[in-house]
Amino acid sequence: MAEFPFHIRATDGDARTGRLSTPRGEIATPAFMPVGTAGTVKAMFLDDVRFAGTDIILGNTYHLMLRPTAERVQKLGGLHRFMGWSHPILTDSGGFQVFSLSELRKMKEEGVEFKSHIDGSMHFLSPERSIEIQSDLLGSDIAMQLDECVANPCEHTPAASAMRLSARWGERSKAYFGKRDTQALFGIVQGSTYPDLRKESAQRVVETGFDGYAIGGLAVGEGHDAMCDTISLTTPHLPKDRPRYLMGVGKPIDIVEAVARGVDMFDCVLPTRSGRHGQAWTWDGPINLKNAKFADDDAPIDQGSNCPASRDYSKAYLNHLFKAGEYLAPMLLSWHNIAFFQSMMAQMRLAISERRFEAWRSEMRGRWVRSADQPG
Amino acid sequence: MAEFPFHIRATDGDARTGRLSTPRGEIATPAFMPVGTAGTVKAMFLDDVRFAGTDIILGNTYHLMLRPTAERVQKLGGLHRFMGWSHPILTDSGGFQVFSLSELRKMKEEGVEFKSHIDGSMHFLSPERSIEIQSDLLGSDIAMQLDECVANPCEHTPAASAMRLSARWGERSKAYFGKRDTQALFGIVQGSTYPDLRKESAQRVVETGFDGYAIGGLAVGEGHDAMCDTISLTTPHLPKDRPRYLMGVGKPIDIVEAVARGVDMFDCVLPTRSGRHGQAWTWDGPINLKNAKFADDDAPIDQGSNCPASRDYSKAYLNHLFKAGEYLAPMLLSWHNIAFFQSMMAQMRLAISERRFEAWRSEMRGRWVRSADQPG
Repeated sequence: MAEFPFHIRATDGDARTGRLSTPRGEIATPAFMPVGTAGTVKAMFLDDVRFAGTDIILGNTYHLMLRPTAERVQKLGGLHRFMGWSHPILTDSGGFQVFSLSELRKMKEEGVEFKSHIDGSMHFLSPERSIEIQSDLLGSDIAMQLDECVANPCEHTPAASAMRLSARWGERSKAYFGKRDTQALFGIVQGSTYPDLRKESAQRVVETGFDGYAIGGLAVGEGHDAMCDTISLTTPHLPKDRPRYLMGVGKPIDIVEAVARGVDMFDCVLPTRSGRHGQAWTWDGPINLKNAKFADDDAPIDQGSNCPASRDYSKAYLNHLFKAGEYLAPMLLSWHNIAFFQSMMAQMRLAISERRFEAWRSEMRGRWVRSADQPG
Repeated sequence: MAEFPFHIRATDGDARTGRLSTPRGEIATPAFMPVGTAGTVKAMFLDDVRFAGTDIILGNTYHLMLRPTAERVQKLGGLHRFMGWSHPILTDSGGFQVFSLSELRKMKEEGVEFKSHIDGSMHFLSPERSIEIQSDLLGSDIAMQLDECVANPCEHTPAASAMRLSARWGERSKAYFGKRDTQALFGIVQGSTYPDLRKESAQRVVETGFDGYAIGGLAVGEGHDAMCDTISLTTPHLPKDRPRYLMGVGKPIDIVEAVARGVDMFDCVLPTRSGRHGQAWTWDGPINLKNAKFADDDAPIDQGSNCPASRDYSKAYLNHLFKAGEYLAPMLLSWHNIAFFQSMMAQMRLAISERRFEAWRSEMRGRWVRSADQPG
């Protein structure tokens, strides 16, 4: 495996803050990774993503392998050069989107066959092919093993079966990945919300041995409390000295609660997706700028922010832009939300290093708890 | 009328370069005004519009009076504050959009009644109401008189009738505008492509007396050559010491030929609109980034540009973004096109002041003439 030193600077309860060093730069943890699905963080310039406090972004293998294709990205110099981002990139394995977006999939021990949602063409993804795409062709800094994802709630038997297939795929992913100096590979713990399955999965994944450990299969229907419980019963089985990544999460309250349970990395489309739909995340919970009550509101979303999108445009102007269907509306609100999420991560890192995370968390819970089970 | 000193620094043939001074800043001429229809230059941040070399933008009275309404913009501090642009803004009168976008219009001597294309509501625009909206409510720096627009070709009789109504509306616009210290009013010459009507129109508008003189009713079907001829026979009737503005024009070749005929100001949706549709304007004419031949083209649109959108992204990446329907595609190409248009204006200003405009124009004609009658 690679050398990706992970230094934990401070802990507060189970929460930790530190940094993961990669050849393309340091990642301050807990870290939020904006999602750059198809080689772009939707409706944003990457300079603004970076200057909002982003150390690492996520790319989606499924989307990129279908369009423009991984081979074309490689020919154009790899994903970093293609999209113009010189900092770390984590790619997912493609598995989750195969299960959520594609049609006509066929699961086999060997891998998964699926039909592109773009043009109906047939494709095959195996653990080996996923690593080939991520590490050899796209050239991401952190690759994820292929896994089988199930939606919650899920019966014990299919959850166990998907978890064990994922464990075998993890071994094959690692075998194909081999030893690389400048790239890392993370394994994924599955097992739905079942304590015995999560424990078995964590033990098998740790035994295989990865540069970092992801908790997969959450934020897919189980609800906030079950998600928190599942994190709590999983992290004790993961090594303390390697980064833990909660995949596809989430709302601010979800992220805060996961940090409290020892998670170091997150990714989610929420800030950009909800921004495109008019929702702004704030220290007082989410607001929807399409709401008519903002039509005459001359105040910006956050006067105290250092982000131009949060500070320099009135809610009335944003309301107008959304009503008029203007591009600038999603541009500004995606930017605001990414800046907000990164401010939240920065506040958590500081609160943990000053050992006052519990007070910070409890203040935010008070502000946000009503939004915990609202749809993103 | 207002004090908007216009200083001509140099001339070369009929072409002139200089600056129009306004309370909100200087406008280097010949000037291109990007169009900010509904309070936003589509798909762009105004900082990028400004840093591309923009001194003044255009706002559309028709769109803003319907949404968010001129009264609301006034309540929110005026158009500059509403949209976050502290430099000069010229507003059109609303007339052109009433004729091109609205339904069920009813022309009277008093003004024009029309039905909103947004919600079907009925509205009335008179010369007085247009100035009230532009100067009193939106607070633009330069207002345009209301005029009646006809499409070309147009018979002599209706063209004469529309031109004379426009002349009477010009007098009423000026009477309502009165004397203002910090705002200017431009009159508009009409008359389709008829020399006698253009001459009569110019004489009447000059007699009424405005801070600047626009040539309206062109780029509406007459073609490049008839447009050039009409400009040539109009400018001799306009005062040399006041700015001349060719409304709604145009393609690079149109702008260059109009500058050669003594025009100082331009506006057009072309750079942003064609950018949203994949077309990039370059020193070698337009290219369409959606074209499959760019899918593997690793070169940027313009290696030699100082605009990040032109220089830092490969054509292959832009091709991918358009195929994937990503927001970043129109964002980057609108930016590139605005930067290209402003570079072209800067080159013309320099060429005129160095008295080598004719050579520059003839080189550009050679490069662009094939694109002169292509649809924008």
